[in-house]
Amino acid sequence: MFKTTMNVDALFLGPKSENREFFKEMVDYAVDEHIHWRADFHPEDAPLLSPMDQHQPDFRNTLYRTEGILRQLSSKLKTTSVPWFSPRYLGHMNADTLMVSNIAYVMTMLYNPNNCAHEASPTTTELELEAGRDLCAMFGYDVQKSWGHITSGGTVANYEGVWVARNLKSLPLAIAQHEKAKDLVAGMSEKQLLNMSPTAILDLSDELKKRELFEEVRALTVRGVGVKQGQLGKFLVPMSKHYSWMKAMDVMGIGQEHIVPLPVDENYRTDVETMRAITFKLIEEGTPILGMVAVVGTTEEGSIDHVDEVIKLRRECEEKYGVSFYVHVDAAYGGYVRSMFLDENSKFMEYDALIARYRAEDIIPEGVTWPKRAVYEGFKAMSEADSITVDPHKAGFIQYAAGAVCMKDKRIVDLISYHAAYVFEEADDAGEEQNVVLGSSIMEGSKAGATAAAVWAAHRLVPLNVSGYGKVIGRGIVTADWFAQKLSMAKPIVVGNRRFELRPLMHPDFHMVNFTFKEIGNPSLEDHNRLNQRMYEVCSYSSGRTYSNDFLTSSTSLAFDEYGDTPWIYAESRGFSRREWDKTQSVYILRAAVMTHFLRDPQGFEDYWTNLRAIFAEKLGHIIDMEAKEANQLKAA
Amino acid sequence: MFKTTMNVDALFLGPKSENREFFKEMVDYAVDEHIHWRADFHPEDAPLLSPMDQHQPDFRNTLYRTEGILRQLSSKLKTTSVPWFSPRYLGHMNADTLMVSNIAYVMTMLYNPNNCAHEASPTTTELELEAGRDLCAMFGYDVQKSWGHITSGGTVANYEGVWVARNLKSLPLAIAQHEKAKDLVAGMSEKQLLNMSPTAILDLSDELKKRELFEEVRALTVRGVGVKQGQLGKFLVPMSKHYSWMKAMDVMGIGQEHIVPLPVDENYRTDVETMRAITFKLIEEGTPILGMVAVVGTTEEGSIDHVDEVIKLRRECEEKYGVSFYVHVDAAYGGYVRSMFLDENSKFMEYDALIARYRAEDIIPEGVTWPKRAVYEGFKAMSEADSITVDPHKAGFIQYAAGAVCMKDKRIVDLISYHAAYVFEEADDAGEEQNVVLGSSIMEGSKAGATAAAVWAAHRLVPLNVSGYGKVIGRGIVTADWFAQKLSMAKPIVVGNRRFELRPLMHPDFHMVNFTFKEIGNPSLEDHNRLNQRMYEVCSYSSGRTYSNDFLTSSTSLAFDEYGDTPWIYAESRGFSRREWDKTQSVYILRAAVMTHFLRDPQGFEDYWTNLRAIFAEKLGHIIDMEAKEANQLKAA
Repeated sequence: MFKTTMNVDALFLGPKSENREFFKEMVDYAVDEHIHWRADFHPEDAPLLSPMDQHQPDFRNTLYRTEGILRQLSSKLKTTSVPWFSPRYLGHMNADTLMVSNIAYVMTMLYNPNNCAHEASPTTTELELEAGRDLCAMFGYDVQKSWGHITSGGTVANYEGVWVARNLKSLPLAIAQHEKAKDLVAGMSEKQLLNMSPTAILDLSDELKKRELFEEVRALTVRGVGVKQGQLGKFLVPMSKHYSWMKAMDVMGIGQEHIVPLPVDENYRTDVETMRAITFKLIEEGTPILGMVAVVGTTEEGSIDHVDEVIKLRRECEEKYGVSFYVHVDAAYGGYVRSMFLDENSKFMEYDALIARYRAEDIIPEGVTWPKRAVYEGFKAMSEADSITVDPHKAGFIQYAAGAVCMKDKRIVDLISYHAAYVFEEADDAGEEQNVVLGSSIMEGSKAGATAAAVWAAHRLVPLNVSGYGKVIGRGIVTADWFAQKLSMAKPIVVGNRRFELRPLMHPDFHMVNFTFKEIGNPSLEDHNRLNQRMYEVCSYSSGRTYSNDFLTSSTSLAFDEYGDTPWIYAESRGFSRREWDKTQSVYILRAAVMTHFLRDPQGFEDYWTNLRAIFAEKLGHIIDMEAKEANQLKAA
Repeated sequence: MFKTTMNVDALFLGPKSENREFFKEMVDYAVDEHIHWRADFHPEDAPLLSPMDQHQPDFRNTLYRTEGILRQLSSKLKTTSVPWFSPRYLGHMNADTLMVSNIAYVMTMLYNPNNCAHEASPTTTELELEAGRDLCAMFGYDVQKSWGHITSGGTVANYEGVWVARNLKSLPLAIAQHEKAKDLVAGMSEKQLLNMSPTAILDLSDELKKRELFEEVRALTVRGVGVKQGQLGKFLVPMSKHYSWMKAMDVMGIGQEHIVPLPVDENYRTDVETMRAITFKLIEEGTPILGMVAVVGTTEEGSIDHVDEVIKLRRECEEKYGVSFYVHVDAAYGGYVRSMFLDENSKFMEYDALIARYRAEDIIPEGVTWPKRAVYEGFKAMSEADSITVDPHKAGFIQYAAGAVCMKDKRIVDLISYHAAYVFEEADDAGEEQNVVLGSSIMEGSKAGATAAAVWAAHRLVPLNVSGYGKVIGRGIVTADWFAQKLSMAKPIVVGNRRFELRPLMHPDFHMVNFTFKEIGNPSLEDHNRLNQRMYEVCSYSSGRTYSNDFLTSSTSLAFDEYGDTPWIYAESRGFSRREWDKTQSVYILRAAVMTHFLRDPQGFEDYWTNLRAIFAEKLGHIIDMEAKEANQLKAA
């Protein structure tokens, strides 16, 4: 029933606050319910405040001061906030957020549960566990065997991935050091101990638990004794990496020099051949691989790594060399996009059936080539990763701050947890979740139960499959495709006697479109970069009041330091010489995550595009004027 | 002016929602302002949704479904949430939260700023920096030279303290390894390099920056090369430690075995003599001290460590042995209590002047002995700690999740940051905060700007001094004192022919009161513990619906494993034999953080106490019945 009735436009407050009546009614409901809950708690207790008290001058003045501070805050927010909700904003991974999550947050915040411990959050700890199971199911994990929970964001989720990978990697060595356990790894060399597969290590941990040696041996892992510089090997991360990976290596005491960056291909995905060559070389040198990261939705380009190739490579290494490693997928940005591929039973659909369904339900119309086969295979293989980072506050359309991490095999949690090792099994029995102390199984401690409620409510209203999030995210994907097509074919924008050509960096893997302006006839890459930086400046907060701006976007610089020669591919396609690239070594781009669901109507999009071209022309004119003024000032000085 | 007008009762919604009208009005204001902000953004844009669209069945059904989910959530929350707001709840560090912070959160959440980067949160990044400065000023730090920011909680704040301490500790060794820098530490032995004072190391970092070698040398610290097992020495943490310290040693790759636990005295504060002896012994053995933690508000007892003695000890070690170490204060729970000691200019008041002021303004009345001299000196010395954890969501009366960390010398941030080293100096110039990317200077990445707004708004309404937070926190301190006095002198509660005596664990250092019931004539410590555990069970969620309970509290077990023989002091005072203690090795206690501001009226408190005794008698009767039933069942079986 529901499948046919969810209306995407009814999920959001809307760019003109179109759903304001409903929104206000629900906020009222949330507040009223809480107010009466308080009032009804032990009605026999006399009120401690009388109307008389409340009308004394100091009481009134305190309320007036409160109101004054809130007015001041409102004024500040209205002056400089970024209008994520508007189709005029295409920049960071931000858009309007789900009404149900906003209101669930408000409602729950009033009760102020703390998901650190079940005792302080009997309802919301359960909602967090349920939301975690939802995410695990979305990634194709066995819900009975996996484990997911909410974090304050993707950075902490990535830390947690490294944390479990690191402690797991050091377990076999710890076993070999324990008198009563070392027979479990008898005959294995240190090299072999450092190259076991995650599953094999977890099976060993079961043995340790049976022998009641788990805690003792765990104390001999890195957790107990600390990192031994360099021992655990290398951590392979795509060059497109978010800086949180550099932070993770620092925080975890592993050291940044143990990151091996993997070059990216022309689509800003990890280059498969180079990844394989680097991996084999490390193995042949005898260097252990602590872990490998695949990115599903790179921060700067929205690219989807070939997760399937990473999984295939691991299998190959296991078969050929007896060497395995941990695989983490950083899907902070792209994780929820996996819902695009799932049917109502969370089954990953066959490619042809998927396309048929897209067409039948007008989710992806004719003329939009999505998903590319590589993207499809990349998403499909996520179910084989050991852990996955995903941010509900990105493509989950939930307000900040809500990240999450999922682990394929929940036994791994015991490597980092501070509770007795049996709690999880107990929690499997219905109603036995009272024992759950999230704070002792995760990095963080106290945390808002309201966040869990917001994510849980979103998942109830918008299922994590093609008929739920698929419909929401699909709109952005289609619009992004149209946008990229327009950019590819756009006639130059003429301003006076100068002509500017727009082109996309590449066709997007899902909904991020990067593009640049280039003045026709100007061979200088430096000028190109300056022009685009100025465009960013006039299309963002950096040049003044956000609110009056006609179009807002974000930007980034693709530099040799991070990407090697990959940006040269684009520079060349725009007609810059190799010499220009060697001299400048970076390409400044505009960056638009097309998440809005409001441009999905073909005619509406045409109008939007026409308007956008006019805005671009005006902004280019403005930049030309500015530059002329600057030149004059320079001359005058 | 304001000093005389703040009314504490006007800050909270109240136990009967007494301030409901104001609260609702402000929520309405927040929502309306946002709604119109959206509607007024480019009024020329045609609405993308029409009333017709909004009245189609699928649209209406989606709204109905949204409402249904929110009703379901409300029902769940009402069934099991804990009534923190009520004086009937004395347990965890929870109470009613400030209206201004609740509403500031709601207001800001609608704009959804992300404090990871200034660009995504032009307003709220500035509010976060301002709130950080407020906290630094509260701790007596020089606001120009220090740095504070919001974290998701105290656990992450503690991690950050260890993170900077660890990287700082490894800098001198890194300098010695760099060809162009090693002259800065010429002639120093490895031992000397590992024992420098934080300030001396930061002065060296200035030299590195002048030589433009900072980044290169930083890459040779732990950050770049990883932890070398055991090299950086020991981390001294009180036995009263929160388990986040064990997690921190694991996460940071240092290893838990490098924690040296410091025994506590009869007040559950770090025992000064033993701390000194342990420190000197380590130094004489040649073991470096990575850092020492003092706790301001232990999680289980609310005790205040002798921070002054820690600072004094460090000075002594520097003078006597040329050995220094990092000092972190974990004031997650007690940090805001420092406002009790500050005048309107954030000056820490002289003891006598303070007491005079307390009496004059009826903040601490005659008959309440607060602060003890040791507590006063402990709080005073916080200004000399290198970093401090503090949780606005505990004694700051702000909803979850809001932690914070402050660093005395902001140069230290460069040891962990991912921006060029000059950004902070730039940000000092007025209006130059645009460059601030919080995400690159802290552990976390994306984070809700709404949290910053909530903390900022609280600080504006309730200043961090005696006339602001002092008034709010003072109420709990006074009530806690009265409660402890009542417990100390309470006549036995008689149930049938059995008599139960109540006593507090000790006199509280601020507002946490621990206590137990003991049946008179029963010499079994095991029975005592079982009785108190049952009391907890009937005074908490664990035995059913929270909402109908007459009194709610929390509990903990003080065990030999963690506390050594310290709990024996209490057991002995209750008449248990040493043999009982040796056999049982733990004391189960009830634990009440008295944060409510509603019991500060002497007559009201008398009534409350009378009522509470009756509730205790009833609950004891209930437990006796339960036990009799169990005994019968056992007999029957």
